[in-house]
Amino acid sequence: MNITDRLVEIVGQNNVLNKEDYAHDATFMDAAPIAAVLPANTEEVARIVKACAESGTTITARGAGTSLVGGPVSLSKGIVLSLERLKHLEIDRANVVATAGAGVITLDVQNAAAEVGLFYPPDPASHAMSTIGGNVACNSGGMSCLKYGVTADYVLGGTVVLADGRVLKLGGKTRKRASGYRLMSLFVGSEGTLGIVTEVILKLIPLPRFRSTAMVGYTTMDDAAQAVSRLLGAGHFPSALELMDRAALDLLAHLLPKGFNPDLGAVIIVEQDGNEEQRVQLDLEKMVDLLDGVDNRLAQSGPERDGLWIARRSFGKVLMEIRKNFFAEDISVPIAAVPEMVKRFGKLSQATGVTIATVGHAGDGNLHPTIVFTDEQRHHVGPMAAQIFKDAVELGGSISAEHGLGALKRDYAELEHGPDAIGLMRALKNLYDPKGILNPHKVLPEGPADDNFLERLPGWGTKLASGRDRAELGS
Amino acid sequence: MNITDRLVEIVGQNNVLNKEDYAHDATFMDAAPIAAVLPANTEEVARIVKACAESGTTITARGAGTSLVGGPVSLSKGIVLSLERLKHLEIDRANVVATAGAGVITLDVQNAAAEVGLFYPPDPASHAMSTIGGNVACNSGGMSCLKYGVTADYVLGGTVVLADGRVLKLGGKTRKRASGYRLMSLFVGSEGTLGIVTEVILKLIPLPRFRSTAMVGYTTMDDAAQAVSRLLGAGHFPSALELMDRAALDLLAHLLPKGFNPDLGAVIIVEQDGNEEQRVQLDLEKMVDLLDGVDNRLAQSGPERDGLWIARRSFGKVLMEIRKNFFAEDISVPIAAVPEMVKRFGKLSQATGVTIATVGHAGDGNLHPTIVFTDEQRHHVGPMAAQIFKDAVELGGSISAEHGLGALKRDYAELEHGPDAIGLMRALKNLYDPKGILNPHKVLPEGPADDNFLERLPGWGTKLASGRDRAELGS
Repeated sequence: MNITDRLVEIVGQNNVLNKEDYAHDATFMDAAPIAAVLPANTEEVARIVKACAESGTTITARGAGTSLVGGPVSLSKGIVLSLERLKHLEIDRANVVATAGAGVITLDVQNAAAEVGLFYPPDPASHAMSTIGGNVACNSGGMSCLKYGVTADYVLGGTVVLADGRVLKLGGKTRKRASGYRLMSLFVGSEGTLGIVTEVILKLIPLPRFRSTAMVGYTTMDDAAQAVSRLLGAGHFPSALELMDRAALDLLAHLLPKGFNPDLGAVIIVEQDGNEEQRVQLDLEKMVDLLDGVDNRLAQSGPERDGLWIARRSFGKVLMEIRKNFFAEDISVPIAAVPEMVKRFGKLSQATGVTIATVGHAGDGNLHPTIVFTDEQRHHVGPMAAQIFKDAVELGGSISAEHGLGALKRDYAELEHGPDAIGLMRALKNLYDPKGILNPHKVLPEGPADDNFLERLPGWGTKLASGRDRAELGS
Repeated sequence: MNITDRLVEIVGQNNVLNKEDYAHDATFMDAAPIAAVLPANTEEVARIVKACAESGTTITARGAGTSLVGGPVSLSKGIVLSLERLKHLEIDRANVVATAGAGVITLDVQNAAAEVGLFYPPDPASHAMSTIGGNVACNSGGMSCLKYGVTADYVLGGTVVLADGRVLKLGGKTRKRASGYRLMSLFVGSEGTLGIVTEVILKLIPLPRFRSTAMVGYTTMDDAAQAVSRLLGAGHFPSALELMDRAALDLLAHLLPKGFNPDLGAVIIVEQDGNEEQRVQLDLEKMVDLLDGVDNRLAQSGPERDGLWIARRSFGKVLMEIRKNFFAEDISVPIAAVPEMVKRFGKLSQATGVTIATVGHAGDGNLHPTIVFTDEQRHHVGPMAAQIFKDAVELGGSISAEHGLGALKRDYAELEHGPDAIGLMRALKNLYDPKGILNPHKVLPEGPADDNFLERLPGWGTKLASGRDRAELGS
C-alpha cells in the first residue's frame, strides 16, 4: 500500500485535503506537500507518524499556517500534518490550568480562561488565528511578554508524538517540578523538528480586572527609543509598550486617532493592567510622565482605548491593503540597545533608499522592522535583512524574538549561536529524529549566512505573502 | 602525571582542599571525593574537565552543598568541583538583568538587585547560603513561586562547560528569543549531569515596594488545605502562601507569636506584595476573609511581620536543635489535590505511629512532609517516603518540586516519568556526556523503586544531617 492510501486508511478520505491549500504559510514560500492530512486525535497522529517513519515520508506539522518564517511549509515533498482538528479545550479552574489540543486557537484559550476570571497572557498578534500548538512550536510572544513572559513560561506539560510514533506524556497539572531533565522545555520552540506536540497543559494566572492605555508621540524615532530605555531602566514594567516609527505611521495614517499630530516622528503605545482601577491609572500617568513625549493621549474610555490600539493592531492588514511588497522581520536586542538598533534601521534605509517601517514590542527589545519595497528594489531585501540579522547579533540580540527560524532564517542560525551550539542542536536533532522525517530544512543551517538566503527558498521573487493570512496577521 | 597533580597544576595547591569537607551535603550522605578542587573561573573549569575527561575521572560540581538530595556528593570516587570562587556579580540596570558566576550566593543577587530597585524572585529557603549555580542545577523554587515562577523562568542564558571541556555561551541579555533549540533550558534542572554551568544571565523585574502579611489559624489541617484550594480557585495569587500543620507547630511552639492559640490544628501564612501600600493591605484583607480561619493575625508593622514569619523560616533549624532524627521531603501536586495529599500524610502517620510534620509552599502545591522519627522507628522511613512518592504521582504530581532528584530519589524517577521519558533522558545523558564523567549516580534510576532506596545510599542509618547545613537551611 502506498503512503497516501495508508493515510486515508487512518484518517478517512474526508480528512485528506487539497494539497494546494496547504502549500503556503504567511510568507512568500510556495511548496505543495504530497498530501495534507488532518488527524482527529493524538492516536491518529501517532499512527500517521509510524506509517511515515516506515515509508520514509517526511512530515511537516502545521497549526493555522500563520508562520512568518515558512515553518509549516513542506520543503521535502512530504506530507503536511495539520493539527487543526485537535480542538479539545478544558479550563480546570480548581487547578488554575488549561489543557488544550494543539489545534485550539490561542484566543479561544484566552477567552475561555477569562470567562472564569483567569488569564493566559501570551498573545501573538495573530492570536485570533494562530493555534496553541503553533505557539508552542515557535515559543511565541506578543505584546504582553515584558510583564508576563513568553509561551515557554506557561507550558507545564503536554503530549508529544516522537519521530517513531511513540506517544510521550510529559509533566502535568503541577505548577512546580524539579524532577529529571526538562524534556518538555526542549520541544517548546523546536518548530516540529524534534517531535509533534499534540496537547499542552498551560499554567494560568488571575485575570487583571482593569487596563489603561496611552499614546505618546515623539519628534524623532531616536527620542522614542531613548524613552523606552528610560522607562524600563527606572523599573517600570507596563503590560504593553509598543513602538511605531514614522514610516509605519505613514502607512497607518487613516487609522490614527482624530487630531493626531501629523508631524510626529514616532509614537509609543503604553498600557498598564491591574486589579485596582485608580492604581492602574496612576501607574500609567507616572509612566507617561517618564516617557516625556511631545504629544500625549490617555484613553478615557474603552472605545478610546480601542482607538489608540487600532492602528498598531492593523499593521499587517494595512500592508496588504496597500498592495505593496513587504518583508516583515523580527529581531530582539537587550533593552538598552533599542535606541542603537533603531538608529541602524534608519541608516540602512537611507543607504538603500528602501523604506523600513518599524513596529515592535519595544519593552522587551523585540522590533519588527518591515522592509517595504518596489519590484525594482527587490534585490535590496536579502542584503538588508542580512544586515539587520548581523546588527541584532552584534548588539547581543537574536535574529528571531518570537517567530522562530523556520526555513527563512535557518542559514543565519550559526551567526547567532556559534558552531558549538549549532553542533549540539544537530546532535539533538539526530537523537530525536534519526531518520530526519520531522519538518526537514527548518531551524538548522543548510547554506551560508550570505545575502542570497532568500533566493534559496521556493517562491521568493515570484510572489509575496499569501493574502489571506498576512492580511489578518499583524506582526 | 596523575590527575591530582594535574589539578594542582591548574588551580594551585591552595585551591585543592580537604576532601572530608566536601564529603557531605545537607542529607545523611557521606562519601569523600578523591579531591576537592576550587577553580577561579570558567577557563580553569574547562581545563579541569578536559583533564578529567582524558583520565576518566568523574566530576561532581558543587555550589554551597545545601542540597537535600545528595546532588553534590561524589558517589563515584571522583573529584568534587566546587564553584564557590566564581563570585562575579554584575547588575545591569539598563538591561534589567544580572550576570552572576555560579558561586554567587542567591541572597547576594537579590540584595544587589534590590539596591537599584530590581527584584530576583526565586528564593529557596536556603537563599542565604545556596548559590545561583546550585539553584540553576536544581531549578530551585521557594516561597514566591506561585506568583513569580521558578529559577528556570529567569535564566536568559549562561556559560556551560561541556563534558569534553568545550565552553558553550548560550543566550544573552535579550529577554525574548525564539531562535533554535532552547539549549540553556535543558541544562537548568539537570543537576550537573549534562554540563557544568559556570555563569548565568538572569532576568530581573521591578521590586515591589510594599508587602503585607497575615497568619490564619484553623482547627484542622483539612480545613487549612481546603482554604488553600478555595483561595486559589477564586483567582487570588498571593506572593506567599505557606502551610504548617499541628506537628510542625508543636516543634515550633516557642517561636510562635505571643498569645498564639495552642489549640489550632494548622496555620497558613499569607503575604501579598505590590507598589501601593493601601492596595496591598486591601488585597491581603480580602484574602484573609476568603481563607476564613478561626484565628487571624494581620501584621501591623515590620517587626510583627517578621514575628509571623520566624516560626516558618526556622523550621529546619529547630529540627536540628531538638536533635531529633528527621527526613525532609519535597513533593508537589496540582493545587486542588493539596487537601487529599495532606489527608494521606495524616493516614500514613496514624498507620505507622511516626510523626509527619508538614510545612510547605501550599500555593503551588509544593509540600514538605517531614518524617520525625526515633531510632527505633528508622525502618519506617524508607517505606513512608516511598508511599509519599507514590501518592504524589498518583495525584498527578511530582516526587520533587524544588530540590531535584540527586541520588536520593533517582530510583523513583521512572515512577513519575514513565519508561519512555526516562529512556529519552538516558539518551540525552549519553549524548551530552558519553563517558559518563559528569556527576554519576544522580537523576537517572539505578535500582528498583522499592522501600529500600535509602539503604542503597552511603551514610543512611549511620548518621543523619551534617549539622551545619541542615541547621541553617529550613526546608
